[in-house]
Amino acid sequence: MASTISMGQYLFKRVAELGIEHVFGVPGDFNLTLLDELFKVRELSWLGVCNELNGAYAADGYARIKGVPSVLVTTYAVGELSAMNGVAGAYAEHAGMIHIVGMPARAVQKARLLLHHTMEPNMDQTIYVGMAEPIRKAHTILLDEKTMAQEIDRVIEAGVKSRLPVYIYVPMDIVGIPLDASRLDTPLSTKVANMDSQQEDEVVKSTLELIKKSSTPAILADVLTIRHGGLDLARRLAAVTQFPNYATPLSKGIFDETSSTYNGVYNGSVSFPGCAESLESSDLVLNIGFLLSDSNTGGFTRNIPDDKLVLLGHSYCQVHGKTFEDVHLLPVLKRIVEEIEKDPKQYGLPKSDSRAKVETPLLNNSTSGPITQSFVWQRIGRFLQPNDIVLAESGTAQFGMSDATFPANTSMITQTFWSSIGYTVGACLGACVAAKELKRPGRVILLVGDGSLQMTVQEISSYIRFGFKPIIFVINNDGYSIERAIHGEKQGYNDISMLWDHQKMLEFLGARKETGIESRSFACKTVEELEKVLTDSEFSSANCIQVCEIFMDALDYPWRLSTQIAISRKNMAQAMKGN
Amino acid sequence: MASTISMGQYLFKRVAELGIEHVFGVPGDFNLTLLDELFKVRELSWLGVCNELNGAYAADGYARIKGVPSVLVTTYAVGELSAMNGVAGAYAEHAGMIHIVGMPARAVQKARLLLHHTMEPNMDQTIYVGMAEPIRKAHTILLDEKTMAQEIDRVIEAGVKSRLPVYIYVPMDIVGIPLDASRLDTPLSTKVANMDSQQEDEVVKSTLELIKKSSTPAILADVLTIRHGGLDLARRLAAVTQFPNYATPLSKGIFDETSSTYNGVYNGSVSFPGCAESLESSDLVLNIGFLLSDSNTGGFTRNIPDDKLVLLGHSYCQVHGKTFEDVHLLPVLKRIVEEIEKDPKQYGLPKSDSRAKVETPLLNNSTSGPITQSFVWQRIGRFLQPNDIVLAESGTAQFGMSDATFPANTSMITQTFWSSIGYTVGACLGACVAAKELKRPGRVILLVGDGSLQMTVQEISSYIRFGFKPIIFVINNDGYSIERAIHGEKQGYNDISMLWDHQKMLEFLGARKETGIESRSFACKTVEELEKVLTDSEFSSANCIQVCEIFMDALDYPWRLSTQIAISRKNMAQAMKGN
Repeated sequence: MASTISMGQYLFKRVAELGIEHVFGVPGDFNLTLLDELFKVRELSWLGVCNELNGAYAADGYARIKGVPSVLVTTYAVGELSAMNGVAGAYAEHAGMIHIVGMPARAVQKARLLLHHTMEPNMDQTIYVGMAEPIRKAHTILLDEKTMAQEIDRVIEAGVKSRLPVYIYVPMDIVGIPLDASRLDTPLSTKVANMDSQQEDEVVKSTLELIKKSSTPAILADVLTIRHGGLDLARRLAAVTQFPNYATPLSKGIFDETSSTYNGVYNGSVSFPGCAESLESSDLVLNIGFLLSDSNTGGFTRNIPDDKLVLLGHSYCQVHGKTFEDVHLLPVLKRIVEEIEKDPKQYGLPKSDSRAKVETPLLNNSTSGPITQSFVWQRIGRFLQPNDIVLAESGTAQFGMSDATFPANTSMITQTFWSSIGYTVGACLGACVAAKELKRPGRVILLVGDGSLQMTVQEISSYIRFGFKPIIFVINNDGYSIERAIHGEKQGYNDISMLWDHQKMLEFLGARKETGIESRSFACKTVEELEKVLTDSEFSSANCIQVCEIFMDALDYPWRLSTQIAISRKNMAQAMKGN
Repeated sequence: MASTISMGQYLFKRVAELGIEHVFGVPGDFNLTLLDELFKVRELSWLGVCNELNGAYAADGYARIKGVPSVLVTTYAVGELSAMNGVAGAYAEHAGMIHIVGMPARAVQKARLLLHHTMEPNMDQTIYVGMAEPIRKAHTILLDEKTMAQEIDRVIEAGVKSRLPVYIYVPMDIVGIPLDASRLDTPLSTKVANMDSQQEDEVVKSTLELIKKSSTPAILADVLTIRHGGLDLARRLAAVTQFPNYATPLSKGIFDETSSTYNGVYNGSVSFPGCAESLESSDLVLNIGFLLSDSNTGGFTRNIPDDKLVLLGHSYCQVHGKTFEDVHLLPVLKRIVEEIEKDPKQYGLPKSDSRAKVETPLLNNSTSGPITQSFVWQRIGRFLQPNDIVLAESGTAQFGMSDATFPANTSMITQTFWSSIGYTVGACLGACVAAKELKRPGRVILLVGDGSLQMTVQEISSYIRFGFKPIIFVINNDGYSIERAIHGEKQGYNDISMLWDHQKMLEFLGARKETGIESRSFACKTVEELEKVLTDSEFSSANCIQVCEIFMDALDYPWRLSTQIAISRKNMAQAMKGN
């Protein structure tokens, strides 16, 4: 007789197969028995978070560092709906997520009982399944015992390949159903491959041809390169070609910024002097993993003509204006890199490109006085060490950090596209977990504003609970400065409670004498005070969880934010006229 | 020339017409210009909350106390999605809510620009509009200038009449469009009336007939009576008929519990001794505003035969088994009450009902030692004063408070049906705001468990910020006890961080010496300690915000919770067999 495994354990064994060691979520009465099955799978640990939105953010942050989809478990209705904005963000920015939702037993669904969390008038317990449709790549409701295992496999595979959220709905009566365990002997098929090899060949060949012919080439590697598993390949491409290389606001950190070939963050008109000019004067731009949203293209001021452009994307590629639908960047990039690495000379490498390296200007060399936006981000950049993970919250941190220069192998997590404030506080937990699993050297550094922090603050208690020691920079600047910059600079709606005492935050949430958990908190109102903290070796060694609160003026904005907003206003005015 | 008013001000003038004085929400770049218009309407004040889910909870709590739909303003995508679970709860439990969402300008929508918060692949900026479809009664996207005013009116009227959430989507370019101001001279049509007067007549007449003939009648008034504006009518009905009257777990507080005719909380088999027997032996049960969910019917053990039952609901009425579709309880109840009040004797009132009053047993008369579930809720009941508002969080507080006896005109807010934990922390803010608007005497008292508190804790800073002084009882019992009772008593997934120091919560969130905001925090591990706090006149006068932390055993559950769970398990086993 074939050996069997419970449905729940089957599911979590498949999860573990992806290299995942922690599952995020919140328990609820419709997922408790499923969690029992999770607890039987040795490879996995449960990581309970404070609420579901934070859980989704944490899962998203985990996926970005770990490079595989994360797993989030919630409960029927209240839980799955609370997570929705977090899952949507993971969809928008391709942080893969397997969202497992415990739901009522099949018989109860059939009977349409008016259970708690259900809705009148029709008591349809799958109503929430429909609501999540736009924010997932695939889903399954596990109803039929005969197909459960294959449905689980199908949906997980779709999630890994697409790096988009997928949903698995688990009625609570099925978690113990025995499934054929031998199915697990066949690994999931998660490798991205292009169906049409002829198309792929053409993209590879024509791109190689263009590389060979080019004299002033450039690499512009965007965020979906990282999300779709192309980070190392992009770095290898930069290394073997020695082409000038550029990141975007969303992909910052993808290249070694201390390298002589790195030319900065390209963001259309919102770039440092010389950066856009240099990239846009290239006769070939290899643009990998692009995400052409407003804040990632300098408000659509990106300017690279098609006849100089190779686009390698997740859903299509494009070479000199010719589009290849459904050709995925990953196999293409792999072949290109391997081909060049075999014989760089064949491609005219190294090129004798006489263009000067684009240097990053020092915006502000303050040594004393108030801390300003023009000073702080580059200064924090100099505080970073190789292998650090930096989370830059939507707001001044996100715009400001494009000014910083990163050491090698810095990972930045920022949600420039989805832009949900409060995100990084949850994502930081996920980043800590992923870094631990990967035994990654380097620190986890959270840069968050006071307004965003208020959205999701409770998750800092999870850092403490699970023994993580991130460095938390809190920008205390009296409210939603990113919105003040956009509109209503002094309107009351951009105010928040200014009564919080961030110096007491870690204490309240768990790090204090009685608990035996060490922490340190600092408040800096001047450059001198900040310098003292940043140059303190104990602080920078991050041996305990720490807060560094930085006070700044509410009406001081990073130049990139102001510039971006001016462009957006112009765009808007034009769009209105066009209407 | 007719005078005009901006679209935004028109909308908020209509809101103010409902008697609303505060609007809840979170700013975002797609609603800032709309908020400018709000700020021009003198009758309204903006109340910025920490995050959108909390905002929805606050709006829900406000609506429950104020008796009109509340208003929540969020921003496109990230905001509206974050609020979703809170809006869904308001839908399930009929706490009216007008959810106003600021969205991209019409021209931008048309151009399908890849703005932040937008989603690939199709950049359809109305994608989120569809996601909210199941959790609203009506909605409008304000695109056409010609119909905007009438659309606003239509949707608000639908919201007031149905007491269900409605959505108004406001593209950011339209807020200043001049609309005809004279339209505001005609008030909104918000009165609930039944279309079919013949049907309504029949319900009224046959019910009055049954009242006349009955010898052992009873009133069972459920939560939708309150939600649909029938609270006073139900109380008048009880007063004029002197019928034995009953609440449900969801409607507790609807009747004066110190009255000689009040017989307790009817919840099927999960009722105090004698309560179910008494109600179920009645020859007529006037069941008003029913919501027949699992936890509001003792797990479907409610047992009232159709031939003794009059159901007055929001979508239908039913008299001795005969159903009258689309007959709304409110006009019916009004007519019945007014008819009887004119001449009670005509209806054989008062009845000489010889049945004994159902007395509430004293569950536990501890005077010392550990604080137990069987003791604490009745004790807190004795702490209450007339006109208090009590919020009982889903969990032990919710089940426990059915044991308490309330003074007259106590309002209880609890989400027994939707059951989203963390809800009351947001709802408490809304209750405070509504109580202030109503100049309601009495205190606001929050009963919340440690696990639920962690979901939404930041909103306590809003209480402090806006000067509210609720009494916050925090049940510190090491995690999700309601879930331990259900399943996995000692499983790790029911644990939470036990490192929080609730005694430092108010200090961290704003009440401390430097801010000049007074607060008091107490920790009680024994009955003696709790008695000391509860009998302290300074504590009970609630002149500043206060926390009373009550330590209880993680595995101690209210009897109602345990009984309910046992029934649910039986139900489940039967449903499975039936399958």
